Amino acid sequence: MAALFRGSRNVLLRWNKHVDFAFVSSRSMASKTPVGFVGLGNMGSPMAKNLLKNGYPVIATDVFPESCKELQDIGAQVVDSPAEVAEKADRILTMLPSSPNVIEVYTGPNGILKKVKKGTLLIDSSTIDPAVSREMAVAAEKMGAVFMDAPVSGGVGAASMAKLTFMVGGVKEEYNAAQELLTCMGANAVYCGQVGTGQAAKICNNMLLAIGMIGTAETMNLGIRLGLDPKLLAKILNMSSGRCWSSDTYNPVPGVMEGVPSANNYQGGFGTTLMAKDLGLAQNTATDTKTPIPLGSLAHQIFRVMCSRGYANKDFSSVFQFLREEEGQ
Amino acid sequence: MAALFRGSRNVLLRWNKHVDFAFVSSRSMASKTPVGFVGLGNMGSPMAKNLLKNGYPVIATDVFPESCKELQDIGAQVVDSPAEVAEKADRILTMLPSSPNVIEVYTGPNGILKKVKKGTLLIDSSTIDPAVSREMAVAAEKMGAVFMDAPVSGGVGAASMAKLTFMVGGVKEEYNAAQELLTCMGANAVYCGQVGTGQAAKICNNMLLAIGMIGTAETMNLGIRLGLDPKLLAKILNMSSGRCWSSDTYNPVPGVMEGVPSANNYQGGFGTTLMAKDLGLAQNTATDTKTPIPLGSLAHQIFRVMCSRGYANKDFSSVFQFLREEEGQ
Amino acid sequence: MAALFRGSRNVLLRWNKHVDFAFVSSRSMASKTPVGFVGLGNMGSPMAKNLLKNGYPVIATDVFPESCKELQDIGAQVVDSPAEVAEKADRILTMLPSSPNVIEVYTGPNGILKKVKKGTLLIDSSTIDPAVSREMAVAAEKMGAVFMDAPVSGGVGAASMAKLTFMVGGVKEEYNAAQELLTCMGANAVYCGQVGTGQAAKICNNMLLAIGMIGTAETMNLGIRLGLDPKLLAKILNMSSGRCWSSDTYNPVPGVMEGVPSANNYQGGFGTTLMAKDLGLAQNTATDTKTPIPLGSLAHQIFRVMCSRGYANKDFSSVFQFLREEEGQ
Amino acid sequence: MAALFRGSRNVLLRWNKHVDFAFVSSRSMASKTPVGFVGLGNMGSPMAKNLLKNGYPVIATDVFPESCKELQDIGAQVVDSPAEVAEKADRILTMLPSSPNVIEVYTGPNGILKKVKKGTLLIDSSTIDPAVSREMAVAAEKMGAVFMDAPVSGGVGAASMAKLTFMVGGVKEEYNAAQELLTCMGANAVYCGQVGTGQAAKICNNMLLAIGMIGTAETMNLGIRLGLDPKLLAKILNMSSGRCWSSDTYNPVPGVMEGVPSANNYQGGFGTTLMAKDLGLAQNTATDTKTPIPLGSLAHQIFRVMCSRGYANKDFSSVFQFLREEEGQ
Repeated sequence: MAALFRGSRNVLLRWNKHVDFAFVSSRSMASKTPVGFVGLGNMGSPMAKNLLKNGYPVIATDVFPESCKELQDIGAQVVDSPAEVAEKADRILTMLPSSPNVIEVYTGPNGILKKVKKGTLLIDSSTIDPAVSREMAVAAEKMGAVFMDAPVSGGVGAASMAKLTFMVGGVKEEYNAAQELLTCMGANAVYCGQVGTGQAAKICNNMLLAIGMIGTAETMNLGIRLGLDPKLLAKILNMSSGRCWSSDTYNPVPGVMEGVPSANNYQGGFGTTLMAKDLGLAQNTATDTKTPIPLGSLAHQIFRVMCSRGYANKDFSSVFQFLREEEGQ
Repeated sequence: MAALFRGSRNVLLRWNKHVDFAFVSSRSMASKTPVGFVGLGNMGSPMAKNLLKNGYPVIATDVFPESCKELQDIGAQVVDSPAEVAEKADRILTMLPSSPNVIEVYTGPNGILKKVKKGTLLIDSSTIDPAVSREMAVAAEKMGAVFMDAPVSGGVGAASMAKLTFMVGGVKEEYNAAQELLTCMGANAVYCGQVGTGQAAKICNNMLLAIGMIGTAETMNLGIRLGLDPKLLAKILNMSSGRCWSSDTYNPVPGVMEGVPSANNYQGGFGTTLMAKDLGLAQNTATDTKTPIPLGSLAHQIFRVMCSRGYANKDFSSVFQFLREEEGQ
Repeated sequence: MAALFRGSRNVLLRWNKHVDFAFVSSRSMASKTPVGFVGLGNMGSPMAKNLLKNGYPVIATDVFPESCKELQDIGAQVVDSPAEVAEKADRILTMLPSSPNVIEVYTGPNGILKKVKKGTLLIDSSTIDPAVSREMAVAAEKMGAVFMDAPVSGGVGAASMAKLTFMVGGVKEEYNAAQELLTCMGANAVYCGQVGTGQAAKICNNMLLAIGMIGTAETMNLGIRLGLDPKLLAKILNMSSGRCWSSDTYNPVPGVMEGVPSANNYQGGFGTTLMAKDLGLAQNTATDTKTPIPLGSLAHQIFRVMCSRGYANKDFSSVFQFLREEEGQ
Repeated sequence: MAALFRGSRNVLLRWNKHVDFAFVSSRSMASKTPVGFVGLGNMGSPMAKNLLKNGYPVIATDVFPESCKELQDIGAQVVDSPAEVAEKADRILTMLPSSPNVIEVYTGPNGILKKVKKGTLLIDSSTIDPAVSREMAVAAEKMGAVFMDAPVSGGVGAASMAKLTFMVGGVKEEYNAAQELLTCMGANAVYCGQVGTGQAAKICNNMLLAIGMIGTAETMNLGIRLGLDPKLLAKILNMSSGRCWSSDTYNPVPGVMEGVPSANNYQGGFGTTLMAKDLGLAQNTATDTKTPIPLGSLAHQIFRVMCSRGYANKDFSSVFQFLREEEGQ
């Protein structure tokens, strides 16, 4: 992924000073009791494995049996439904593709909340609408459980290497308990505030990232057409007020930097379709809160058009290629 | 100004290694011979003073007699027209508000090119359309003179303290000769390429700056409405992929940083009206070169609307205030 | 309102030829049996009165007792909850401000579906997300009832004079039964297709209306600044390919037309805040269906900004005033 | 072309009542004296032929000899330069691709104004920046000649059949004299005001046309995805406030209308590249006059991107195809 927090290994340390150590819940004491895990996809599967590696018994489930099989082979106990997970674990992580899946897994007929035990800690690492996170928290509270949102930054690679970053929203007293598990799966965790603020932080970052990337692509393209050498232009921008992550760390113009998707025909990285999804969430929250986001909206539309013009699976920095004149036209 | 190159005092040093020292023109040897200066406004006047301070005799002119008077009092020789300046100096700087002024001063009936001596070095520090810079260079070449564009980054304060940065376009062989004068007036100079690329670099930087600033304002506003603390959100963005100069150095949200216009009711800084002017230049060059700049275009329109809603003279970071809900609505 | 279907009194007639008369439900025979009505606001109240005027007994409810009182005084039976309405009527209309209200009124603890009788016809005239309409239809079907969406075009005036237009989505076989009631409250009804298409038609029309209005405002403003007389420009556009409803029927420039909000300081008409709401629905449906709407999105953002700059309650054609240079700037 | 004034054959008649007949210049009396013509391209050639057909001797020139040859064969006198045309004719028409060509033909070393006779009537039918029209008028006036701008609506077909529409700017007293010639080449002429307003009217119309077309394409696409039948949706829009020329006369969705480019794979009509050019002019005049045109700007960018994605030579209504999801994605 266009690594949010990339290269910031010490963040956890720095953030820890903000953490309130006064309250340490009994759950966080009860290390190594079983941890539930719902959603064993590309991201969830390596995350669950890291819990196993850290010595936690894992009770897992997924709608696809083959996903479960793989985890079962390395020691997880597989059960049939989120409700069953809730019967057997008092700390549960969920990692799902979108809001409707989260709603189903928590409040559906075989959902977690049907069988959840009082005092259970529920941590959702899906990237979804913060309003849904808040709804789930209210529903969990009615059952005496605690819900936190903890979306991640970092892709499949970071998930495998336990280098994810978690942005966490929820009751502050529970943050330590959550952190105990999250640090098995990630390098950093940031406490953002009340339920939903983890999602908010992720959505906000990715919106600004999208705007900066398109802006960088437009600017580099314009400069090149005006006769500037791309490397020189990037250098000038990066020592100036035009500087941004997309210009200095993830430049979208082939030949300017090495080790980034633009150096590799926009393979790998953070897909345009995923960026379009995140911008859709940003748009929804902005509409709900009556917040004007003119550039964010237009960025959303641009990535949406790109998805239908053959760029869906390329890295989102391919917007440079999209805006540049085609060969042979 | 939203200081392009702010805090990069050593840039000149770093850039010097790129400079070709093999050719040193006779002009650059002839230090301390008179230097012409046309355009003694808010920026031009302190620049001309810095030439005087460095021991250069200055032959100056301006359409406003009072501007000339002040410079005359401290030792400059004032003449009646750009043509007369050209008769008396073989190195001439111009600092004018916009393209039409530059055209008039160079090619008008009393313009520099009417009387320019062969071999004269002409340096224009106005911010104008690069196409006009190229036209002036062609016209100068016909008269045997050399024209370079060298727009500045940095405002009146930087001009007074000789801390401007120059982005220079023109024949490379003349760059050293230009640099000799520019370093009396600024801290940095960057050679950008052929004539017009100095303008191009400035325009590109400011376009990306504008996009980053509006993007930051939208994002901070959205995050705040979603329940995030503004300082925390800025911190998260700045250690993440949303990071940009507007988020980490010039944050537009009051209370997040000190010493920036947002901490001072958007006084000082870089006026919205100036940003709208630079975006107009970006738009013009993009239209001329058939380059799509969707976010740059929309940024231009937003600052244009702001100019008509009472923000013309506020710092351009006041876009945060513009987008945020009004009190009492 | 920016009357959708304004001046098209004969539409019903023309549309009728598309109607399938083969199936006439027993409900539509059972005229003058009680009709339920939930939501007695500015729009719902005159609509319910028109049902009474047409001889239908009305069983009504609303969260505000005073709204009920007025209707009770002219003959309606007032009950305590939507559930009670459902016990007493097998044809029910709902007219509510937004999606959450509709969800509550149909599926809440005292909602219609708690007590609905098999075969009941449910008609929702609220303007909401078509996805919510589809959800309500599914929920209704589970109870053996039929749900149709029938949002209106036309404002409070049209509601009072029974001149509304209804865009209707739902099972075609039930359209006649719905039409019997709708024609008591409106002049026109258009059958649009399956459930949700009534909402879709309304949202689509209003999105294009918003784009045309802003486009007209920009164009008129630009033409005036280029020296054209506004009336002459409107005349040229209206006989040319620039023609649209906003230029020829509802021109936003004061002095060009009479009898429109621009002739009356943008009082009356269709409020900016209502247009922003409808564009939010358009944005949501576009995001859900992954449809790019670049101009629709930007139009949404512009009306959203206007809401926060003092234009919330002015007619949406005041975008002309918003874009035009302020006096005294 | 997306025929501005299409189907309005009686416009001239209607407009004539606004014409001041009091002044009839001596030139307009002197019918059938030679008429000069500069620019014999796709549009200019049939226009010049129509002058010949109407009995006017034509003195013509063009930079391409082959263009001249064709006209010579049917009776025109061909000369070597615009200056020579000016020596031999006191009424001259010009039809050129863009602003720089107009500047060259009028003010270049062999330009019209080098040899123009006092009292000559100069009519420029090129579509260019109104500011250039005004410059040419000032330059002509210095030589005692009169310049009018008269850009056309209608394409090559309309030019051949003398069905163009002219939008005319310039001194009103000369309008009758201009009209005498214009009516040989077109069906309609509209007097718009001072010099440059003909251009302004054309640019304004085409900007609103572009906005309406993209808006219609977005709206139709959204409606279709929401389950509406395209013909039904078009019908609803066209009887409602969403109605515009692009929805009711030139609908961009294949299958909705016959006889329009969308019915013929977007062949013929008004090319995307020409629309992008006109929007570039709109953008330039808006920037020069500091007029915000948010939707016009974005429309410009969209057609600009389309030009680089293979749509340059398709009719501009192909924006529907551009925005719609690709097959096989």
